[in-house]
Amino acid sequence: MKIAAEQIASVLGGEVVGDATIQVSTLAKIEEGQEGSISFLSNPKYVHHIYTTKASVVIVNKTFQPEYPVSTTMIKVDDAYKAFSKLLEYYNQVKLMKSGIEQPSVISEGAVYGEELYLGSFCYIGKNTKIGNNVKIYPNTFVGDNVIIGDNTILFAGARIYSETVIGNNCTVHAGVIIGSDGFGFAPNADGTYNKVPQIGNVIIEDNVEIGAGTTIDRATLGSTIIRKGVKLDNQIQVAHNVDIGENTVIASQSGVAGSTKIGKNCMIGGQVGIVGHLVIGDNVKIQAQSGVTKSLESNSAVQGSPALSHADFLRSYSHFRNLSKIAEDLEKVKKNVI
Amino acid sequence: MKIAAEQIASVLGGEVVGDATIQVSTLAKIEEGQEGSISFLSNPKYVHHIYTTKASVVIVNKTFQPEYPVSTTMIKVDDAYKAFSKLLEYYNQVKLMKSGIEQPSVISEGAVYGEELYLGSFCYIGKNTKIGNNVKIYPNTFVGDNVIIGDNTILFAGARIYSETVIGNNCTVHAGVIIGSDGFGFAPNADGTYNKVPQIGNVIIEDNVEIGAGTTIDRATLGSTIIRKGVKLDNQIQVAHNVDIGENTVIASQSGVAGSTKIGKNCMIGGQVGIVGHLVIGDNVKIQAQSGVTKSLESNSAVQGSPALSHADFLRSYSHFRNLSKIAEDLEKVKKNVI
Amino acid sequence: MKIAAEQIASVLGGEVVGDATIQVSTLAKIEEGQEGSISFLSNPKYVHHIYTTKASVVIVNKTFQPEYPVSTTMIKVDDAYKAFSKLLEYYNQVKLMKSGIEQPSVISEGAVYGEELYLGSFCYIGKNTKIGNNVKIYPNTFVGDNVIIGDNTILFAGARIYSETVIGNNCTVHAGVIIGSDGFGFAPNADGTYNKVPQIGNVIIEDNVEIGAGTTIDRATLGSTIIRKGVKLDNQIQVAHNVDIGENTVIASQSGVAGSTKIGKNCMIGGQVGIVGHLVIGDNVKIQAQSGVTKSLESNSAVQGSPALSHADFLRSYSHFRNLSKIAEDLEKVKKNVI
Repeated sequence: MKIAAEQIASVLGGEVVGDATIQVSTLAKIEEGQEGSISFLSNPKYVHHIYTTKASVVIVNKTFQPEYPVSTTMIKVDDAYKAFSKLLEYYNQVKLMKSGIEQPSVISEGAVYGEELYLGSFCYIGKNTKIGNNVKIYPNTFVGDNVIIGDNTILFAGARIYSETVIGNNCTVHAGVIIGSDGFGFAPNADGTYNKVPQIGNVIIEDNVEIGAGTTIDRATLGSTIIRKGVKLDNQIQVAHNVDIGENTVIASQSGVAGSTKIGKNCMIGGQVGIVGHLVIGDNVKIQAQSGVTKSLESNSAVQGSPALSHADFLRSYSHFRNLSKIAEDLEKVKKNVI
Repeated sequence: MKIAAEQIASVLGGEVVGDATIQVSTLAKIEEGQEGSISFLSNPKYVHHIYTTKASVVIVNKTFQPEYPVSTTMIKVDDAYKAFSKLLEYYNQVKLMKSGIEQPSVISEGAVYGEELYLGSFCYIGKNTKIGNNVKIYPNTFVGDNVIIGDNTILFAGARIYSETVIGNNCTVHAGVIIGSDGFGFAPNADGTYNKVPQIGNVIIEDNVEIGAGTTIDRATLGSTIIRKGVKLDNQIQVAHNVDIGENTVIASQSGVAGSTKIGKNCMIGGQVGIVGHLVIGDNVKIQAQSGVTKSLESNSAVQGSPALSHADFLRSYSHFRNLSKIAEDLEKVKKNVI
Repeated sequence: MKIAAEQIASVLGGEVVGDATIQVSTLAKIEEGQEGSISFLSNPKYVHHIYTTKASVVIVNKTFQPEYPVSTTMIKVDDAYKAFSKLLEYYNQVKLMKSGIEQPSVISEGAVYGEELYLGSFCYIGKNTKIGNNVKIYPNTFVGDNVIIGDNTILFAGARIYSETVIGNNCTVHAGVIIGSDGFGFAPNADGTYNKVPQIGNVIIEDNVEIGAGTTIDRATLGSTIIRKGVKLDNQIQVAHNVDIGENTVIASQSGVAGSTKIGKNCMIGGQVGIVGHLVIGDNVKIQAQSGVTKSLESNSAVQGSPALSHADFLRSYSHFRNLSKIAEDLEKVKKNVI
């Protein structure tokens, strides 16, 4: 797929400076550009690369004035970063624009699907499952019985969607994601053994949610585990039964949320965080990486540490922790004079 | 699957108050009940919901005396919670009662299996593998050569069982679980590279074990990694080579146990715990979430922190950590007067 | 596969003491040896087992002089441990020596492969993918479009390799590994929602890399996420977009490396470590388990804690943390006399 600089300029509404007929086929960082690639220059820190880059085409800001001769072709636009992002998105869409039903694959009795479905080989669609329009399901993916999947949603290779799960529109579910596995519920017996508490709820994923590779989301004991509109989950996150994660909350990789905890909107949760069960976390809460949250948190709070303290308190205490030897020594000196 | 209130009452040994012919098809929480659903009321805190619930039927304790009119049908039983659990279990069993061998699937030479097998499409059963009665293996699951699987065991979609693994009776293995991958063993060379230490042991999972989604259990270098009777492992747990986990021990999600560590019976281990290799952890040990265990622990101990201290010591020290600024300030004041 | 003691001795260049015709078929620890198994004795601590072992054959050091009668057959070699390892390796190679293309499997248009390929059932190979000689791909594995895989590489069951990934020679990729999933990049909008930043880079895995079960490695936003020669990654590790891990670095399970961080050569990183994004970690760095690294680290440094301090400083501070109650009490006593 080769495309000329003048065609790109016309898509982006930009102006070509240099050879307008030069063709590109790949995207690259400006410092890694090769013949046939297009790049961009936005951050002033990287300006020097424009004079040496091997990229055939570089998108630059309209305001950019080179101090030295530039041999590459430039496309001048209002905002080079945004223009390049637009190009990336377009490039990605083309790459992912698969369709058709590959064989062998299984679509069970009663399952229905919309237009432009891509269903890869070795995919299994359970009974009475409903799949919307323009859904892309990569090979080796399992979708159980009575699942609902909205329009424009992508399931990458080997995702596992247990029965009764509901997934909204415009979601991206990466490889190895597991949605709807049993919650971890066991009732102890007098002899030390446990009885399993049946887990008959489901998982609801609302629209515009992205779920990273290897993340697991357990079904509710009763009712639903809910991931609300616009939530972004990174890789290898664990979401336990009956958790409810609010709109546009973002969680970094390897964090875990225990059962029945409710997290508010627009929270930012770092990597490797643990949140115990049955808490209520407000809106706009910030939790630093590796924190352990053991108490409910009010909206707009920021915490760190295990167990978590307010962010400011943690930093203060930790700065003294670093000097704890000095504190202990000083105290010994004081004691010698006093006690 | 619709069932009338009077039929449920007869199964549960209860008494109907209201419309005995009303039919239900789903289970729900009392506050989320809809027409056609059955719920229960056990906790006195939720009593008010009985007057407003839309559930068609609610199971209540025999001793329950409404203060206001109740419009839903009630089934009175000795213990509403237990009765509902029984119903849940029955409901779940019916839902999971799949059987038959779906195509395409591969059963290799020498493999044998018992009665009532469910083998989903795209499952692969290796050579000489032995599968018991009433085993349910969901689609896209891989079982290697020379594996043994006991009666009534369920492998959910996409589990990966490496060769020579032994799994007992009545086990539940969730989607994405990996059992029998190589232990992490490498011998350093003088030039900084490593040679792999061959991992030729296996994994033994005893009876009544549940293993959560995405958990990984490595095979032993020599001998066996062992998960004993009644152990319950949550999602995304890592069990390294030659680990031995004692009967009825429960581990919460995202914890990891390093190589050759032996854990006793009836332990309770929180989420995101790390336990280093070659330790011996006694029976009935409690380890708080996010702890890092670096030394062997006697039976009945309880620990927290990273590295872990006794639970009481950790809580005491951490309460002072919270006030470390105050301690440092006080010390400065004291020093001005004394040193 | 039975083999006589004299044949093994001839392979290992050893001398048989006892019945040279006795046959073995399995390998075992000396204390767990059974009839038909071969074991080894190297560590003097285990010497007593030689007099009671049921193993048919035991490999011992040439220098070993029994104090009591030994009934098992011995093979005397220069270094019993090394000889046994060699045997293990040979045993493992034989066991893994699968070849042939099993059906059903999909090899898409334009894909090519070398000699001695093993491709298990339900494997999917994408368009224009190039696979070297002697590659073993276990069942249920997905390999996307335009992937390159070198010679002698093994992909275990259910690995997921996204498009454009490059994997070198002699690599081992375990079950459930995901390589090339999208990096976690989102640009915030004014209304609290996020726009996905397209991730169009790839992942490059160099030669002699081992990747443990369930590990996830994200593709670069632009350019490549790189795992260099000889790196060993344990299970359930998360490697974010644009990370670069240096030669022969070893990382234990459940650790995570955030976006764009560069790690040097020959580092040793413990389990459950978190490293934030955009750092530079030097060569030969040691990071203790559960540490949280928030700053770049010079070569040869050793750190611990969250946030991480130098290893020595952390140990010093933590030893006082253990006694923080005593410090606080002493300070109170001092204050009563002074303030």
